[in-house]
Amino acid sequence: MNGAESLMRTAAAAGADVCFANLGTSEVPLAGALDRVPAIRPVLGPHEAVCTGAADGYGRMTGRPALAVLHCGPGLANGLASLHNARRAGTPAVVVVGDQATWHAAADAPLTTDVPAVADPFCAHVGRCESAEGMARDMADAIGESARGPACLAVPADLARQEVREPGADAALRRRRPVDGDRVARAADALRRGGTAVLFLGGGALSREGLLAAGAVARATGCRLVHETFPARIERGGALPAPARLPHPYDDAAAMLADVSAVVLAGAREPVSSFGYAGRPSGFVPDGADLRVLAGAPQDCLDDAVDALERLADRVGAAPAERTGRRAGPPAVPSGPLTPETFAAAVAAAQPADAIVVDESLTSGFGYHRAAEAAPPHTCMVAPTGGAIGHGLPLATGAAVACPDRPVLLIEGDGSALYTVQALWTQARENLDVTTVICDNAGYEIVKWEVDKAEGVGPSSEALLSLDRPGPDWVGVAEALGVPAARAATAKELGGALRAAFAEPGPHLVEAKIRRAGA
Amino acid sequence: MNGAESLMRTAAAAGADVCFANLGTSEVPLAGALDRVPAIRPVLGPHEAVCTGAADGYGRMTGRPALAVLHCGPGLANGLASLHNARRAGTPAVVVVGDQATWHAAADAPLTTDVPAVADPFCAHVGRCESAEGMARDMADAIGESARGPACLAVPADLARQEVREPGADAALRRRRPVDGDRVARAADALRRGGTAVLFLGGGALSREGLLAAGAVARATGCRLVHETFPARIERGGALPAPARLPHPYDDAAAMLADVSAVVLAGAREPVSSFGYAGRPSGFVPDGADLRVLAGAPQDCLDDAVDALERLADRVGAAPAERTGRRAGPPAVPSGPLTPETFAAAVAAAQPADAIVVDESLTSGFGYHRAAEAAPPHTCMVAPTGGAIGHGLPLATGAAVACPDRPVLLIEGDGSALYTVQALWTQARENLDVTTVICDNAGYEIVKWEVDKAEGVGPSSEALLSLDRPGPDWVGVAEALGVPAARAATAKELGGALRAAFAEPGPHLVEAKIRRAGA
Repeated sequence: MNGAESLMRTAAAAGADVCFANLGTSEVPLAGALDRVPAIRPVLGPHEAVCTGAADGYGRMTGRPALAVLHCGPGLANGLASLHNARRAGTPAVVVVGDQATWHAAADAPLTTDVPAVADPFCAHVGRCESAEGMARDMADAIGESARGPACLAVPADLARQEVREPGADAALRRRRPVDGDRVARAADALRRGGTAVLFLGGGALSREGLLAAGAVARATGCRLVHETFPARIERGGALPAPARLPHPYDDAAAMLADVSAVVLAGAREPVSSFGYAGRPSGFVPDGADLRVLAGAPQDCLDDAVDALERLADRVGAAPAERTGRRAGPPAVPSGPLTPETFAAAVAAAQPADAIVVDESLTSGFGYHRAAEAAPPHTCMVAPTGGAIGHGLPLATGAAVACPDRPVLLIEGDGSALYTVQALWTQARENLDVTTVICDNAGYEIVKWEVDKAEGVGPSSEALLSLDRPGPDWVGVAEALGVPAARAATAKELGGALRAAFAEPGPHLVEAKIRRAGA
Repeated sequence: MNGAESLMRTAAAAGADVCFANLGTSEVPLAGALDRVPAIRPVLGPHEAVCTGAADGYGRMTGRPALAVLHCGPGLANGLASLHNARRAGTPAVVVVGDQATWHAAADAPLTTDVPAVADPFCAHVGRCESAEGMARDMADAIGESARGPACLAVPADLARQEVREPGADAALRRRRPVDGDRVARAADALRRGGTAVLFLGGGALSREGLLAAGAVARATGCRLVHETFPARIERGGALPAPARLPHPYDDAAAMLADVSAVVLAGAREPVSSFGYAGRPSGFVPDGADLRVLAGAPQDCLDDAVDALERLADRVGAAPAERTGRRAGPPAVPSGPLTPETFAAAVAAAQPADAIVVDESLTSGFGYHRAAEAAPPHTCMVAPTGGAIGHGLPLATGAAVACPDRPVLLIEGDGSALYTVQALWTQARENLDVTTVICDNAGYEIVKWEVDKAEGVGPSSEALLSLDRPGPDWVGVAEALGVPAARAATAKELGGALRAAFAEPGPHLVEAKIRRAGA
């Protein structure tokens, strides 16, 4: 057995059963190792962003090490934007990068790059193998450290080929830790002190167990539940507590938290604006409000947010239980042409039970989250946890690989879709049950809105922020990459197309022509 | 005038008349500045790799600053692989990245990243603006330093909005410098000493002037002319001297240089293998051969290779002149089904005069370079100067923007095409005269060949190195993105489709179904 195989065996023993990969010559020993470790299923991404984005989706859904193998330097670079989102989501992704043979590095051949330096700004852990014998241990370390987000391991090709004695190493993600009792006590005090208190939720707090505990705390203390704007994963629908989503637009977010007297963070960071606006504070928690950390965010620490919320619920005298006030029924089925409002309602009304919903709709989909509160139980993942667009198609791909028995619904902006349209090919090849609905509003509306607010849209910025002349034919793109597709211009057509797509296994795409406000 | 506008005016004054861009909220002030500096034409790339790859093509063709504006962190990351190629090509690209407002950086909002750290492994120069008043000077420095390859400048959004007194700064690429006379003398000695001498050409030595001087040196000394495997730009065809291309496969390259007694480098680095192979040296120049640097490579220094070759020609008693032995005529027109051989011949036979040929064909196109020696005069750019694939479509896009009066022919591998297929949309929007021919061999053949050689292709590596099940329908993809397309399975069909494409303005695509050897 060589070093590469000991590395792959270590990954497989830690629960990695899939490898999202795009290989080059420096990964030849890793390719050979995958051939000899059939417990790991290879999934080809025809661009590295598909691999790292899919790894993020797999990791968010399984909690197991999400393995990717990428080519040195530029290949890794192509996957960084998705690793950035995975880092902010705290996803346990492990990216293995083949590197030049140690003795060949000094030749500075065209593909030679400093792999750890390339990975460092986007990873929670970066390593480089120094020997074949240490490769299994290096991989175990990378897996362990990926508990706080992506780890990257550079594997020189010559070392990967050397024979080793050890067949692999034991490996597991580092475990979450109970938070200090003082934090629970102080959080309870802050929520019970009167005034307007908010329990601000993210990370593990948005799991079913976390939400049930949070709901119990809200009932016992009267606090409001709010969740972060871009949650990596949240359980929703049915009878689960439905925290309010902190809005993305600055004014709306500031208004939601304007009157709070206390904010307790559970699995989340303090909420801040995505960008700085002159004369306004970075953070949304008002001066003078009592800010407490019950449990930190996954990207920052290993705090166990679920355990912390359950202990908090005990402390405030609440018993975790399903919310009694069940919603009346499924979302209403809208009619008429597709506007952002009817679009959101039509998607929510059509989504099947137990769906995994991936949201990268940005402007078109802001209404979806509210509309889907009454949908059947489902998991929602907001794609751009780190603000990097082009993540939705790969994320949905990885979620479908991870959960073959659940339907995946991707709500995708047109600007984002064009970033990583190659993921459709992987969905076709793997016959994944993903239905993508493209919100075709012919532009990067979210940025155009910011330009318009700041200084008005002129001819150059209009040209740079519109996806028209020509508008991509999404049905044509999908079918050419092997994904059956349809087009919808009304709420009824969209509902019909989505139901037809979910009724048939394998990937589908629906292009939704959304009229802009005032158009 | 604000800082952003002073920066753009500096770029425009230095000759940048195009900006390849993909914007986010941190670039809003830069968008406003582009609206107020109409001398710079905005070109939208629907993925940052399209922007940086197009900037590389524009810079290689014009020698002027190739401007790109990208979004902070992840946006820049998406463009790094193309910057890697541009770095190895020594292209004068200047990438401006909007960054968080200085006072907002501490909030570590989702998109906050260390922009200089992200850029550093792939750029010749990295800067960050510290004041609005210094922004024009910072841009001038970035432009100057881009003479050795891409420069990156981070522009905090708050500073970009501040008013400035200075309307811009003078800026120009740093000039190439004459090499020391000793180097010319030593090169002449090495080439005249007898034995088998090679003048190894790259960078500026592959310009028309450089090649004519090199040809004169070869006639006077009897040395062989060889050029680097992945030249950024080489003038070819007609009556120009035609150096041999150093082959990509290790054994072929080693064989070409096995018997040399002296190698003189002109605008090129010492030739080395792309990857390390056990038991074989990194470099191809045999032990004991006399290795001399006449002029270094553009990525390493500002040596003026053309001037050095002309002085060398004088020194060895040769007068620069066109080669007398003109070739007999245009390449023969092949017939029969498309194999790598008939494909190469059909493309060379169909290419129009004064074409810009972009080559990212890898395995399918190795035969093209020899076939095109007899073609009419043309410029050839090999896309992956740094080995990063997915560079052809963007590079051709930028070349067509730079040279609207010349037809652009892109010979593109299918694996590479799927990386950056979004560039077709930009070609359609800008109505660029690019004809893309896709070498459809249904896989990453170059890597499969390496795996097969090293350890044999097993089921996992076969799955990861084949682009089949389904094969992308390239005609469908192109048409859906606004590019008319056709399909060819024989040499005759390919020739006809290429001639029809060149006869009509605007972008076209031809899918060439190439039979693998033995298939």
